[in-house]
Amino acid sequence: MIVGRTNQKSYTLSEITELYGGDLVGDSKTRICGVASIKSAKAGDIVFLADRRWRFDVELTKASAVILDKNISLPNETPVILTSDPYLYFAKVSTLFNLPQQTQPNVSDKAFISSSAKIASTVSIGPGVVIGARAIIEDYVSVQAGSYIGIGVKVGNSTTIFPNATIYDGCVIGKNSVIHSGVVIGADGFGFARDSEKKWVKIPQIGVVVIGDNCEIGANSTIDRGALDDTVIESGVKLDNQIQVGHNCRIGENTAIAGRVAVAGSVVIGSRCQIGGGTLISGHLEIGDDIVVSGGTFVAKSLKNPGRYTGVFPTDDHVHWKKNASVIRHLRKMMDKIKVLEKKIGLS
Amino acid sequence: MIVGRTNQKSYTLSEITELYGGDLVGDSKTRICGVASIKSAKAGDIVFLADRRWRFDVELTKASAVILDKNISLPNETPVILTSDPYLYFAKVSTLFNLPQQTQPNVSDKAFISSSAKIASTVSIGPGVVIGARAIIEDYVSVQAGSYIGIGVKVGNSTTIFPNATIYDGCVIGKNSVIHSGVVIGADGFGFARDSEKKWVKIPQIGVVVIGDNCEIGANSTIDRGALDDTVIESGVKLDNQIQVGHNCRIGENTAIAGRVAVAGSVVIGSRCQIGGGTLISGHLEIGDDIVVSGGTFVAKSLKNPGRYTGVFPTDDHVHWKKNASVIRHLRKMMDKIKVLEKKIGLS
Amino acid sequence: MIVGRTNQKSYTLSEITELYGGDLVGDSKTRICGVASIKSAKAGDIVFLADRRWRFDVELTKASAVILDKNISLPNETPVILTSDPYLYFAKVSTLFNLPQQTQPNVSDKAFISSSAKIASTVSIGPGVVIGARAIIEDYVSVQAGSYIGIGVKVGNSTTIFPNATIYDGCVIGKNSVIHSGVVIGADGFGFARDSEKKWVKIPQIGVVVIGDNCEIGANSTIDRGALDDTVIESGVKLDNQIQVGHNCRIGENTAIAGRVAVAGSVVIGSRCQIGGGTLISGHLEIGDDIVVSGGTFVAKSLKNPGRYTGVFPTDDHVHWKKNASVIRHLRKMMDKIKVLEKKIGLS
Repeated sequence: MIVGRTNQKSYTLSEITELYGGDLVGDSKTRICGVASIKSAKAGDIVFLADRRWRFDVELTKASAVILDKNISLPNETPVILTSDPYLYFAKVSTLFNLPQQTQPNVSDKAFISSSAKIASTVSIGPGVVIGARAIIEDYVSVQAGSYIGIGVKVGNSTTIFPNATIYDGCVIGKNSVIHSGVVIGADGFGFARDSEKKWVKIPQIGVVVIGDNCEIGANSTIDRGALDDTVIESGVKLDNQIQVGHNCRIGENTAIAGRVAVAGSVVIGSRCQIGGGTLISGHLEIGDDIVVSGGTFVAKSLKNPGRYTGVFPTDDHVHWKKNASVIRHLRKMMDKIKVLEKKIGLS
Repeated sequence: MIVGRTNQKSYTLSEITELYGGDLVGDSKTRICGVASIKSAKAGDIVFLADRRWRFDVELTKASAVILDKNISLPNETPVILTSDPYLYFAKVSTLFNLPQQTQPNVSDKAFISSSAKIASTVSIGPGVVIGARAIIEDYVSVQAGSYIGIGVKVGNSTTIFPNATIYDGCVIGKNSVIHSGVVIGADGFGFARDSEKKWVKIPQIGVVVIGDNCEIGANSTIDRGALDDTVIESGVKLDNQIQVGHNCRIGENTAIAGRVAVAGSVVIGSRCQIGGGTLISGHLEIGDDIVVSGGTFVAKSLKNPGRYTGVFPTDDHVHWKKNASVIRHLRKMMDKIKVLEKKIGLS
Repeated sequence: MIVGRTNQKSYTLSEITELYGGDLVGDSKTRICGVASIKSAKAGDIVFLADRRWRFDVELTKASAVILDKNISLPNETPVILTSDPYLYFAKVSTLFNLPQQTQPNVSDKAFISSSAKIASTVSIGPGVVIGARAIIEDYVSVQAGSYIGIGVKVGNSTTIFPNATIYDGCVIGKNSVIHSGVVIGADGFGFARDSEKKWVKIPQIGVVVIGDNCEIGANSTIDRGALDDTVIESGVKLDNQIQVGHNCRIGENTAIAGRVAVAGSVVIGSRCQIGGGTLISGHLEIGDDIVVSGGTFVAKSLKNPGRYTGVFPTDDHVHWKKNASVIRHLRKMMDKIKVLEKKIGLS
C-alpha cells in the first residue's frame, strides 16, 4: 500500500536507462509507473532481482520489467535492465517514483516557539512542537507534531524530524538528515563517580551531540551528549532503530549500524563500518575504518584491521545446547587433559 | 496499590465457580472483593497457587480463598477453587474485579484533528493528540495525550493508544488492540544500497504496517513499515516492551515475544511461537509455528520444527569464565588433537 | 560546547581544596573558571588524571591545573591537587562550575492540568504537558514539554522530568530524581495466561511503579507496573538509557545499571550492584548485594555471593570464529572421548 508520495509520472525503460545506465534487453518503450516486489508486482511495475535463488519466482511476476544482475539470465521474456548492482539501481529507480514527501511551509498555531528562535520562512512546524530560545531552524526543515527542540539547538537545511522526537539543549543537526519518532538526542551521558559510601555522584554532562549531514537516526534511538567534549555522528551515518550511543563517542562517515546496537561511552568508530544488529561495543574502544561486525557480537577489544568479526554462541535445539553448553565450564581442564595425554603417549 | 479500575462489586465463591468452573472446596458463600498476591492479600482477596514450592507461603496468607492447582493440597483450611490451570483461572477472576478503564467519549479541544479525518462519536481523544488527514478512528477507540496518528491511518473499534505513541502515515491497527506509550509504528525500514563511493542510497520504504485484532504492543517498541509490501502483525500477537520488528516481517497469530527482542527485516514468524527476552533473529529467516526460543539466543538460521531452541553462553564467576572462554579459540585444534590421539592409540 | 549552566564565578585552587580537600602542589592562587578534558582544555580549566597511561597527554594540555591520583607523578609543572579518587573529586569540582539548570517557576498556558491535581507554586510545567486528576506535583519539580503525568501520580520535591516522558496512572516518583526523555514508567507488565486454544488472556496489571529519591532514569527506558504488588526502584538507583525493567522487580539502593540492560519480571536486585551494558536477567531471579555483572551477560540463575559474573562469547575474526564455534555442538562428545582416552592409557 503506497502512501501519498508516488510520483504520478511514468517513464519508459529507455528513459530510465538514459537516467541511470544499464543494458536494456527487450522493448525500450515499455512504460513503467512504479516499483514493487516480485510477488506483488502488477503490470506497469518494475522489480529487481539480485540473487539467482529467486529467479524462478520471476517467471510468475506480473511486473513489466526487471532490474537484473548482469550475471543472471531469466527463464522468461520480460524486458530487463542489466546492471552490476541491481539493488543500487533499484534504489535510484524507486526514488524516482517515490519522491520524498514535500511538506508545505507552515507553522502550526498549536506550536510553541520561543521568540528568540530563528525560524526560516520555508519551514514546516507541526502542532505541539516546542522550539526553545535561540534555536536555529534552517530552510525547508520539517519539525513534526510533538517534537521538542531545545534551547540553542541548530537544525540544518532540509532535515526532517518526525513526530515526538526530542533534541536536548545545544545539540546540532546537519543538513538533509532524518530523525525518526521517539529519538532522544543529547540526554545526559551515564557519568557517575562513586563516593566512600558507595553512592553515585553525578558528573555534569556539559558536551553536546553534533550530527552531520545526510544522516538517518532510527526510531527510539538515543544518543547521549558528551561528558566534557561532544558526541559526534559524522555525515552519511545511518542508524537503525533503538540504537544507543553513549557519551563522547565518535562515529565515522558513512558507517551503518543495524537495529538494537549499543555503543558504550567514548568509543571511536571509523568510516564505512557495518555493525550488525544487537551488537554491543564496550566503552573506550577503537573500531577502525571498514570494519564489519556480525550481529549479536559483544566487542570487548578494539578492532583495528579491516575485516569481519564475530562472537556469537551458535543456536541448537535446547537439549543439545544444554548438553554442550554445560561442558564450557570444563574447557580449560579438557585442554589440560589433552596436553597430559599427548605427553603420555609421546605426542608433545 | 490498585488504580482506578476496581470493580466495586463483590462475588461469592459459588458465583465465581458458576462463571468460570472449577471445584469448590470450603464455604461457598465466602465473599471475594478482589485479587492479590499471596504475601500482600488481605481478608476478602482471592489468590492463586500454581507451584507446589510456594505452598507453605499460603499458610501465612490473609486471603479468603485460593485458586489452586488440582494436584496440590494445602496445609491450611482456606477455601479453594481447584482447577487444572490456576494461572488462567486467576486471569479471568482478576479481569472480573479489574475491568479495563472505561474512558468517557470526549474529544479534547487541545487535540488537533484534520477536518478530513473520520472520527466516531464514541471515541476519547486526549489533549495534544494529532490526527492526520483521512484517518479513520472507529468506535470506542481511546487515543491518549500527545499521540500522533498519521495521514490515512485506520484504528479499529475499541483499541487503546496510550500517551505519546506515534503511528506513521498509512498504517492500520485492528480492533481491541493496545498500543503502549512511546511505541513507534511505521517508521522507515532500514533499507540502503551502497554506491561506488561507499555512500548509502536510501530505498524509499513504501509499504505500511498492518496490525491485527487483540494485539498488544509494549512500551517503546518499534515496528517498521515495509520496503515494498507491508509489515504484518497478525491477530492475537503480544509484544512486550522495546521490541524491534524490521521491515517486511510477518508475525503469526497468537505469538508472544518477550522484552527487548529484535527481529531483523523480512523474517516470517509462525503462529503460537514464544520468543524469550533479548533474543535476536537475523534477517530473511523463517520461524515455523509453535517454536519456542529461549531468551538471549541469537537465531542465525531458520527454525522449522516445533520445539525449543537455545544459544546462550553460560554465566560463571568472572575468573572461571575467563579461564574457560579463552579456550574457545582453540576448540578446533583440540578436536583435531583428540582425533590424532585416538588414531595413535587405535581408537579410531 | 557548554550549554547554559556554567557558574560564572571562578575559584582559586586553595578555595577548591578548602571545599573538597586534597593536597595542593603548585601556585595556590591559580584561578580556575571551569572543567574540561585534557585534550580540549584551555587556560583557566582544571582537568583530571586517574590513569597513568594518559600521563604524557598532560604534558600537552593547556589546562591550568590537574586533579591527580596521588600515586601518579606528572612530567610537567602544572599545579596539581593530589587525591585518592580523582574521578570523584572531579565530579564535585565539575558540579561547582556546572550547577544544574534552575528553571523558573512557571506553568505554561499550553499545558493541560486537571483541576483536581495539586501543583506546588514553585513548579515549572512546560507547554503540552498533561497532568491527570489528583496528581501531586511537589515544590521545585520541573515537568518539561510534552510529558504526560497520569491520574494520581505523585512527583517528589525537586525532581526533573525531561520532555516527552510518560508516567502512567498511580505511579510514585521520589525527590531529587531525574527522568529523561522518552521514558515510560508504569506501562502494563507482560502478563498473559494461555487458554486452551493457545490464545493469550491478559492479566490485569494492578500494581504501580514506585521510584525512590535521587534516582536517574535514562532516555527511553521502560519500567513496568506490578502485576499485583508494585515494581520498586529504591533510592539512589541510576539507570542508563533503554533499560527495561519488568513487572514486580525490586532494584536495591545505589545500584547502577548500564545501557540496554533488560531485567525480566519479578527479579530482585540487591543494593550497590553494577550491571554492565546489554546484560539480560531472566525472570524470578535474585541478585544479591554488591554483585557486578559484566556487560553482555545472560544471567539465568540467581547470583548470591558478592563478586563479578560473566557469560560472553569471545569475539574473533569471522573465519576463526566459525571454525571454533562449530565445534561447540561436539563438546560433550569431546569430553567423553577424552575420558575414554584417559581410561585406555590408564590415566583415570
